[in-house]
Amino acid sequence: MADRSQPHPARLSRRRLLGGAAAAGAAGAAGIGWGAAAVTHRDHDRDPGLDTVAFYGAKQAGIATEPPLHAAFVAFDLKPGSRREDVIGLLKIWTDDASRLTQGKPALADTEPELAARPARLTVTVGFGPELFTAVALEDQRPHWLKPLPPFGIDKLDAAWCGGDLLLQICAEEATTVSHAVRVLSKHVKSLVTVRWVQRGFRNAARGQTMRNLMGSVDGTVNIAPGTVDFDRLVWDDGSSRPWLAGGTSMVMRRIAMNLETWDELDAEGRALTIGRTVEDGAPLSGTREFDVPDFAAVDRYGIPKIPPSSHIARAHRTHDGERFLRRGYNYDDAPAPGHMSNSGLLFASFQRDIDAQFLPVQRRLADFDALNQWTTPVGSAVFVIPPGVPGPGGYLGQQLFESAAAQR
Amino acid sequence: MADRSQPHPARLSRRRLLGGAAAAGAAGAAGIGWGAAAVTHRDHDRDPGLDTVAFYGAKQAGIATEPPLHAAFVAFDLKPGSRREDVIGLLKIWTDDASRLTQGKPALADTEPELAARPARLTVTVGFGPELFTAVALEDQRPHWLKPLPPFGIDKLDAAWCGGDLLLQICAEEATTVSHAVRVLSKHVKSLVTVRWVQRGFRNAARGQTMRNLMGSVDGTVNIAPGTVDFDRLVWDDGSSRPWLAGGTSMVMRRIAMNLETWDELDAEGRALTIGRTVEDGAPLSGTREFDVPDFAAVDRYGIPKIPPSSHIARAHRTHDGERFLRRGYNYDDAPAPGHMSNSGLLFASFQRDIDAQFLPVQRRLADFDALNQWTTPVGSAVFVIPPGVPGPGGYLGQQLFESAAAQR
Repeated sequence: MADRSQPHPARLSRRRLLGGAAAAGAAGAAGIGWGAAAVTHRDHDRDPGLDTVAFYGAKQAGIATEPPLHAAFVAFDLKPGSRREDVIGLLKIWTDDASRLTQGKPALADTEPELAARPARLTVTVGFGPELFTAVALEDQRPHWLKPLPPFGIDKLDAAWCGGDLLLQICAEEATTVSHAVRVLSKHVKSLVTVRWVQRGFRNAARGQTMRNLMGSVDGTVNIAPGTVDFDRLVWDDGSSRPWLAGGTSMVMRRIAMNLETWDELDAEGRALTIGRTVEDGAPLSGTREFDVPDFAAVDRYGIPKIPPSSHIARAHRTHDGERFLRRGYNYDDAPAPGHMSNSGLLFASFQRDIDAQFLPVQRRLADFDALNQWTTPVGSAVFVIPPGVPGPGGYLGQQLFESAAAQR
Repeated sequence: MADRSQPHPARLSRRRLLGGAAAAGAAGAAGIGWGAAAVTHRDHDRDPGLDTVAFYGAKQAGIATEPPLHAAFVAFDLKPGSRREDVIGLLKIWTDDASRLTQGKPALADTEPELAARPARLTVTVGFGPELFTAVALEDQRPHWLKPLPPFGIDKLDAAWCGGDLLLQICAEEATTVSHAVRVLSKHVKSLVTVRWVQRGFRNAARGQTMRNLMGSVDGTVNIAPGTVDFDRLVWDDGSSRPWLAGGTSMVMRRIAMNLETWDELDAEGRALTIGRTVEDGAPLSGTREFDVPDFAAVDRYGIPKIPPSSHIARAHRTHDGERFLRRGYNYDDAPAPGHMSNSGLLFASFQRDIDAQFLPVQRRLADFDALNQWTTPVGSAVFVIPPGVPGPGGYLGQQLFESAAAQR
């Protein structure tokens, strides 16, 4: 939900193309342009449930790849007494399972091999929580930003949705595919871990359009386009601080509950002033189209800012170019607690090279004040480092960490 | 999960065409043939998220219509002191909301009208629980079969998943569409009801193929094909007992938890002997193809029945032609309880004209003995009468009941 107000990446490229900021007022600019090239097998004459995304690569899939309709996020805790060899063994199992399932093949010893037959663009992305580095005695290799987020005044965190030593982000176009992958990857390592939480989400939009969250707002207008210089710089680590992390990144996972009962009391104008964008088409209140760059200096004829300074996009707006991150969120809608009518919100997932430098300044501003806070409550929070990908068969996820010079000492 | 073993309806029609039972051994027969005619607007050149299913009709949609990918089942209780006028008012609201949402239009006073823009074959089906008839003082109009199912030895029912005065079955191809419809229909009547339970499910299959449940089994091979004489006879009430119910039916909702941990211990042969069908292609163990009619008398060379008499399909097999019903089930996969690895199963939803005559005999046999019971546990149970449809604008769901001669006394 944070930071709707960064200039649109496609627009930025175009500006560069056109020779600078003078072109900033030009209309146009379409959707974010996810990396379609990452889909290695898509044939529109055949069943899209058979489409696959490559597993092997310098980076893990599921980040620069276009978010499919369904996702499950699963956090695990290592059982007490787990050693480095246990973790390496687990990661080898996950690597082997994911390399097969993502290509529409059953995992080894898959007890429901028929459920593997529809990969539906399945991606499996693995992350490490802060405590994992302690368990494997590699604390000195833990990135400095890999620690629980500081407490914020807006938080009402439930421990049931927080933390975790290991993360699986499992995404696919079909819910059954997600369920099968979660099941296989969880049970194959059940001697080593316990499940800490499972969060399932979904997103829908017309082709090329921005998804809407369950408040009805477009969510994800401003994002970083895969394949751009900005993306490479802002999302992927280059290994300059910790060589093993080159091609990796970080993930922040926030479970943000929506109070739809009180949100309903707000009309479209009230909602627009809260967000800083019109509800209908997502245009910033200073502009007319969703991808117009917000102009926070624009005032109406009475001198009042068109985009209220208290609005979500004004508060989220970066103070410099480095306060940007990739958002890849999903709606959730779970069974309501007794006496309640709904249990909905957003699974906010962001990817950035450095949580402290890119995510936290924005999050602090929003926590200090954001008109939207009246209707949203963070109830879960977790951070993970996403290790690089597996370049090819024979390797395993996290190998760069465990075979780093530090690990050999 | 019950009754996989009824002869396939397409096969039955073909048998009639070919002149009788002599053709029963012939190979062939494809999927169930859901009533595609019920989709009133589907244009393959445009976004399938814009497809609609007609709302008005002699029968409610969501029963003879092909099950889309996502469903939510929501049960409500009337608040104490609710009167007949309250219930009629609620049903008029639901009728108006559903007539708009299913056609891709916002409900009146829809606070998120943008979320209504993708109907995605949305259907809204309304049901009445047993106690509703008491609340509206029309006990004498309650069908004799509308009562909680008797307790079964296999049940471990959780009250949180049982009963309800009113039911909404909301189905669509997109999860966001389902969420928005649940939200609108729930909140517009919140002064009159409380939410008793919400159960969300999904199903996926290649076009024309049978869905698989999360045990990996094909689920729904044997079903009643919409548009056939059998369907009309077995699903739709003809009003002969209660005139108001002509064009209505009943719904049994069972939440069936799967113990995947122990199911995993069974190999493919063990699973086949448990179900009575091969796992790989769903063929009965007496045949070679999914839609082959099971031959329960077939024995191997040692005289042992090919389909074990204790298997699920042998136990579920009807003893006469009237023990059949329409199944329209969905998988569920919710967040596991602390200390558990999964929380999966089947939302079994069946439709039949008479629960006592059609559903209960099969359910009793399965409860008495079914090899599959070792791995499945019913944890929720509810029954509803599904009133007829709304023939056209101006009417409301349940009108036939409330304007029946009995109601006028």
